[in-house]
Amino acid sequence: MQPTTEPLNTRTPIRTTFNPALEDIRMSPIVSISEEARARAKEFEKSGRPFVFFQRGEIDFPTPSFVVEAAKRGLDMGLTKYPKSGGEDFFKEAVAKRLRLDHEAGGIEPAHVVATYGGQEGLELSFKLFKSGAGFSPTWSCALENFVPFAQLDFVEVPLNRDFSVDFDRVESAVRGREFFYLNNPQNPTGKVFSEDELARIVDICTRHGVFVISDEAYEKIVYDGGRHHSLVRVPQDNVITVFTLSKTFAMTGWRLGYVVTRNPKVAKLMRLGNYTQTAGVTTFLQYAAAEAMSNVDGSRRAIATMVAEFQRRRDALFDGLKDLPGVAIDRPAGAFYMFPDFSEFIPRELSGPERNHYVYELLMEHGIASVYGSCFGRHFGDNVRLSFSATPVPVIHDAVERFRRVFR
Amino acid sequence: MQPTTEPLNTRTPIRTTFNPALEDIRMSPIVSISEEARARAKEFEKSGRPFVFFQRGEIDFPTPSFVVEAAKRGLDMGLTKYPKSGGEDFFKEAVAKRLRLDHEAGGIEPAHVVATYGGQEGLELSFKLFKSGAGFSPTWSCALENFVPFAQLDFVEVPLNRDFSVDFDRVESAVRGREFFYLNNPQNPTGKVFSEDELARIVDICTRHGVFVISDEAYEKIVYDGGRHHSLVRVPQDNVITVFTLSKTFAMTGWRLGYVVTRNPKVAKLMRLGNYTQTAGVTTFLQYAAAEAMSNVDGSRRAIATMVAEFQRRRDALFDGLKDLPGVAIDRPAGAFYMFPDFSEFIPRELSGPERNHYVYELLMEHGIASVYGSCFGRHFGDNVRLSFSATPVPVIHDAVERFRRVFR
Repeated sequence: MQPTTEPLNTRTPIRTTFNPALEDIRMSPIVSISEEARARAKEFEKSGRPFVFFQRGEIDFPTPSFVVEAAKRGLDMGLTKYPKSGGEDFFKEAVAKRLRLDHEAGGIEPAHVVATYGGQEGLELSFKLFKSGAGFSPTWSCALENFVPFAQLDFVEVPLNRDFSVDFDRVESAVRGREFFYLNNPQNPTGKVFSEDELARIVDICTRHGVFVISDEAYEKIVYDGGRHHSLVRVPQDNVITVFTLSKTFAMTGWRLGYVVTRNPKVAKLMRLGNYTQTAGVTTFLQYAAAEAMSNVDGSRRAIATMVAEFQRRRDALFDGLKDLPGVAIDRPAGAFYMFPDFSEFIPRELSGPERNHYVYELLMEHGIASVYGSCFGRHFGDNVRLSFSATPVPVIHDAVERFRRVFR
Repeated sequence: MQPTTEPLNTRTPIRTTFNPALEDIRMSPIVSISEEARARAKEFEKSGRPFVFFQRGEIDFPTPSFVVEAAKRGLDMGLTKYPKSGGEDFFKEAVAKRLRLDHEAGGIEPAHVVATYGGQEGLELSFKLFKSGAGFSPTWSCALENFVPFAQLDFVEVPLNRDFSVDFDRVESAVRGREFFYLNNPQNPTGKVFSEDELARIVDICTRHGVFVISDEAYEKIVYDGGRHHSLVRVPQDNVITVFTLSKTFAMTGWRLGYVVTRNPKVAKLMRLGNYTQTAGVTTFLQYAAAEAMSNVDGSRRAIATMVAEFQRRRDALFDGLKDLPGVAIDRPAGAFYMFPDFSEFIPRELSGPERNHYVYELLMEHGIASVYGSCFGRHFGDNVRLSFSATPVPVIHDAVERFRRVFR
């Protein structure tokens, strides 16, 4: 089946560059960091001490068994036929019911819900609606490396203040003439949980300027000290798009189950069409398992509480260990499972560029600790480093803290 | 959390139109046809005769139990963590091995394989690589309604001859200056299986013009009378992208499992990035089940043979019933599970436009038979109608044939 009519050298060469929407995607440095960490770990662990994988966003909890069993039931029920694009009715009903319960979000109906492959597809499709946007910096690296180039967006970063508080004037100048504002709450990489007042002011600014809010609430249930996450699903406006995932809430990162909620019928319709075009819909029997995760209120609350209590013990061990280190400014994260300390007092003043950006990262790596340098999360926090405690037990955190104390003293 | 600082009437109105890539997607008429069919069925079945759902692409076989059990094992093994984007190694190895076995496709390596959500995501991402393309008409409706607008492609249809043979001169003029040629083999909606010679000539034309071939082989295993499907995975060239799915082969339409194969490393890399950006990868434990479907050669061959034998009985019942009807020109499908008869001799000459396009469809609907009018599959076969026998048992086909005989006599 090989063409034979003309010799190779008369052929038109095939193209080697393609659509910039794909060409412009940047492979996350977190992937290469993880590869380096695995290689370094082998060497380091010969010392008898554990290598600390603080770069990971993975969770070391298993998926709750009642969700696993529901997936098996879905299979046995023969829910293996084409899904309805945008979500099965039973899935959308279970989500709407749970949102009304958890967020006192009156008026949320199944028609406002669109099933997606994780928060990922929900966000990717949300970004794709628009041509220009803005969002806080630092922010989830994937938004900058993947969603922005894939949608060929003109995107501007609005820096948070050094203490991660919001400069509303900067938000207002950024959104003027743009189409959406992206918000990650609780926030990756800072662990910040936006207050009800901050959220109201951001929504207000966007609404006055005719701008959409894309609210990424992947870490909605991971909030510490009895604090509360305020969801934008409660805002009864058609310029709000809220994106959720079961990945973190139910330790289901590999299941790829999420959903978008919006009261804007046009946006919901385009999401359904986008989801159909990209994937022909979310795996039918997995939607059944997801509906079970939503509907089993007691079971899911117990599973979440157990997981969050453990994350809080880890946060406390890490924060208490690092808070008084000289040259390290650190904020106690109120949610998610990240800490984003600022090392600007520690890093030699004369360093700049990549050398500066990687300085603390390299130092920690030498001590058997993998982290993610701040420049992965936008343009404004290159002196910070992200430490994730999603998959590191407390004794290993204590060991890591000892090493930090030797480096920063 | 509602904004209160300014009254509603001073707000900038929010936009109501969005990215044309989403706005231009057309909702498939097959969805509304199915809705109409369900409504009509209720009424029709009062007559005591079954309504015939010949519009469906769904399969009435269950997924083979060895694949279902593998999915459950994957869950029990805790394969619920983030997938590797583009596919787990065990998945890509199983696919490469099976391709080498089934297609005598030497040189296929795991690095050539990218896991996707069904053939759908594989094709959607393949189309997205380019800005212009061409493909046969009639063709799978989703390519025209979804992939072309979503990639904002300039796409031209190359009509097959009335007997579904290929006009190679038309192929050559169409691809000149374009970037890819899309081929669906075995073909939806005609049931045509391209011959080895036809394929070689198409690949040759494309290669001479520096054009990619996107080969959609969703129905690869559904071939009748002991015939053979020739896969383009065998072509050792970097201008070929082959897209597969487990949907039809293993009655797994709702699982959403597929894969792309290409020897072009740049294309494979962009596919992995695209898959990661859209969905963060294919559900980990479902890749395990898919790998089992590939690796269990005997089990899968038995399951496929049973299914194809039944499809062939249905094809024979339908073809033998319709082949001699006056005013109906019909080709015996060699693969897939569609028949695409031509009613141009039957439809009144004076009819044109939508009235002509829907004439046979309406007539059949009145007799309790749902079909899909030919204009769904491109610009050139509006006098044809697609009949799918993927989910209709032989006795119901016999009943349908009786009705056809009353209409076309």
